[in-house]
Amino acid sequence: MTDREPLHIGVAGLGRAFTLMLPTFLQDRRIRLVAACDPREAARAQFVRDFAAPVYDSVEALAADPSVQALYLASPHQFHAEHTKLAARHGKHVLVEKPMALTLQECDEMIEACEQAEVSLIVGHCHSFDTPYLAARRIIDSGELGDVRMIQSMNYTDFLYRPRRPEELRTEEGGGVVFSQAAHQVDVVRLLAGSRAVRVRAVLGQWDPARPTEGAYTALLWFENGACAALTYSGYGHFDSDEWCGWIGEMGNAKNPADYGQARRRLRDPRWLADEARLKAEATYGGPAYKPPMLGGPTPAHQHFGPLIVSCERGDVRPQPDAVWVYGDNERRQVPLASPSVPRFEVIDELVAAVEQGRTPLHDGHWARATLEICLAMLQSACERRDVEVFGRETTVR
Amino acid sequence: MTDREPLHIGVAGLGRAFTLMLPTFLQDRRIRLVAACDPREAARAQFVRDFAAPVYDSVEALAADPSVQALYLASPHQFHAEHTKLAARHGKHVLVEKPMALTLQECDEMIEACEQAEVSLIVGHCHSFDTPYLAARRIIDSGELGDVRMIQSMNYTDFLYRPRRPEELRTEEGGGVVFSQAAHQVDVVRLLAGSRAVRVRAVLGQWDPARPTEGAYTALLWFENGACAALTYSGYGHFDSDEWCGWIGEMGNAKNPADYGQARRRLRDPRWLADEARLKAEATYGGPAYKPPMLGGPTPAHQHFGPLIVSCERGDVRPQPDAVWVYGDNERRQVPLASPSVPRFEVIDELVAAVEQGRTPLHDGHWARATLEICLAMLQSACERRDVEVFGRETTVR
Repeated sequence: MTDREPLHIGVAGLGRAFTLMLPTFLQDRRIRLVAACDPREAARAQFVRDFAAPVYDSVEALAADPSVQALYLASPHQFHAEHTKLAARHGKHVLVEKPMALTLQECDEMIEACEQAEVSLIVGHCHSFDTPYLAARRIIDSGELGDVRMIQSMNYTDFLYRPRRPEELRTEEGGGVVFSQAAHQVDVVRLLAGSRAVRVRAVLGQWDPARPTEGAYTALLWFENGACAALTYSGYGHFDSDEWCGWIGEMGNAKNPADYGQARRRLRDPRWLADEARLKAEATYGGPAYKPPMLGGPTPAHQHFGPLIVSCERGDVRPQPDAVWVYGDNERRQVPLASPSVPRFEVIDELVAAVEQGRTPLHDGHWARATLEICLAMLQSACERRDVEVFGRETTVR
Repeated sequence: MTDREPLHIGVAGLGRAFTLMLPTFLQDRRIRLVAACDPREAARAQFVRDFAAPVYDSVEALAADPSVQALYLASPHQFHAEHTKLAARHGKHVLVEKPMALTLQECDEMIEACEQAEVSLIVGHCHSFDTPYLAARRIIDSGELGDVRMIQSMNYTDFLYRPRRPEELRTEEGGGVVFSQAAHQVDVVRLLAGSRAVRVRAVLGQWDPARPTEGAYTALLWFENGACAALTYSGYGHFDSDEWCGWIGEMGNAKNPADYGQARRRLRDPRWLADEARLKAEATYGGPAYKPPMLGGPTPAHQHFGPLIVSCERGDVRPQPDAVWVYGDNERRQVPLASPSVPRFEVIDELVAAVEQGRTPLHDGHWARATLEICLAMLQSACERRDVEVFGRETTVR
């Protein structure tokens, strides 16, 4: 931390992704929210109340605001490319939510636009920013356990039964767990493998006719260094794999196992059944049912994306929300992790280092494009029932 | 239980598989051990002391013993076919340890020999006999959760560092985790999928030059009914997935996490390093370091083969050593399992029902052949880096 002026961020899109980043924006003093845009008038009004800052009804106008140094793009997936190019045209740095975009061509255009404008492009938050994975990667990089050989990653959540807009349940518009959740899981696994992915074999699951998009998948992912990863995800809201993460939830929160089935129960409420999209909007930032984040309470642990084991030649590494477990040839030890003072501070670390010190971010456009390439290859592999090769650039953890 | 005369069993091979079955043989009154053979004189002498029964130095002689009704074949994998055919020629029923054999042709010959001789052929013990999996299958069969869609099965053990004879570390002679451990895992997954496997994609891991056979694998397995299973196994003795089974070990025993690394530590003892095969023999039945099983103590739970989740259309099922957890749309519930009075009683259930009531066993030759076919396809898929089709017969759980 320095005493320098905080980085001035303009927010495009005051929806769920924004509310998940809000505790970070409110508590990390290295940044300040100075403007926002959203199509919903109520969201804009809430932003004015909360930040006493200008609001706009278009990203174009937000990008043109001279007080804005960087844009946080939390608009729906399908607008990421257009909004990134717009930001670059106005010379603004870009922090864009995952998934980076829906096609590789969009990714290429985003990368080129930011390179030409000489602005930073960071994709996130994504769970590969989480401290447990970064700490695990450092242990692997130390070489004490030898090369990575196999990674097992699972996540069993209620993703599919969280409130959705209609397009979030249409795969072709970026809906379903491959675009939204494999984007995390693949990213985490790539970080830990430390090598370029070369090949994918995947199977998709779509089991609930009322939520007609992929709700589950299982995949094998091969890396250039010979490592292989097995990824399994289910968002169908049954078994909850946070049980294997000490009942710490994805956001680092303590969970009560007795709350079983909450997401599905809420959706069964007749009001939700009638108009899920409207009620989702009402509970979102600025809506009549919106609840601001509780700050100042204890953050029990780091965020995470499910149980994961990295098997190296001479030991396994298991990132957990509060520690990284290292299982060596002779002993197992726990490398404790200090509780995060601010959630997702790792995103601000990368953003500030990129903008102020000119450091190339780990989660840059090339990195995120390679993850999208794998997600698209998962869809293709399941459809064509065969291995699919991928070509993403060499990715070295810096 | 009836008061009828127990089934008379002759044991071929008094090695580790036998010692794992011994608590069952000693406590299940439906059977009685009446003869045995083993190439080791010390093992034969111990059998005479323990059972006051005849011993032989050849399977041929054992099979010819008129007091023997069924042969338990616990000889090394590579002898299973020859010994099964020998038993059939003498009109004896066969309980043969897994893996059934090393080639499909051997399986075919075993099946044909037993069919021609009209004797029962059962392959096991295998963990698919374990009560938690059979109970899970009954819950699935009830239909309350709909069709099986995805199965996730993992097991992280110290398999590779248990004492070994040299051939147990040579894949071509049936060594390594595919023949010995996938035989369990594939069998369990097939039982729960309830359908014919049609396709396999696998990757093998071989990371320790001192144990030059497969020590790990990860695989996808497709079934005719549309279900897909992801299987991961590591026998490299690092992370121990019994942590996710309430620290109950494979044999139903309570485990102490502080015992971490025991198997590897033992092998590092200079005496073991010098002559592992001899010390393995010394600790085996009849050897100077042999310890008889402790009977009468509490068996805390059922045997198992690692954490496993079956995802059905409307719920997940998770067999655990003491209960089956059912995660439905509205609630999760625990179906408790009575502690087993005798370990592996399920094997004797099937054997007695086959021999005395003429019931076709679930784990018959056709069933076990289909599992071997998948294990061989795993080896082929990893080698050829592509999906491999399998053709095993339709298998219905009876």
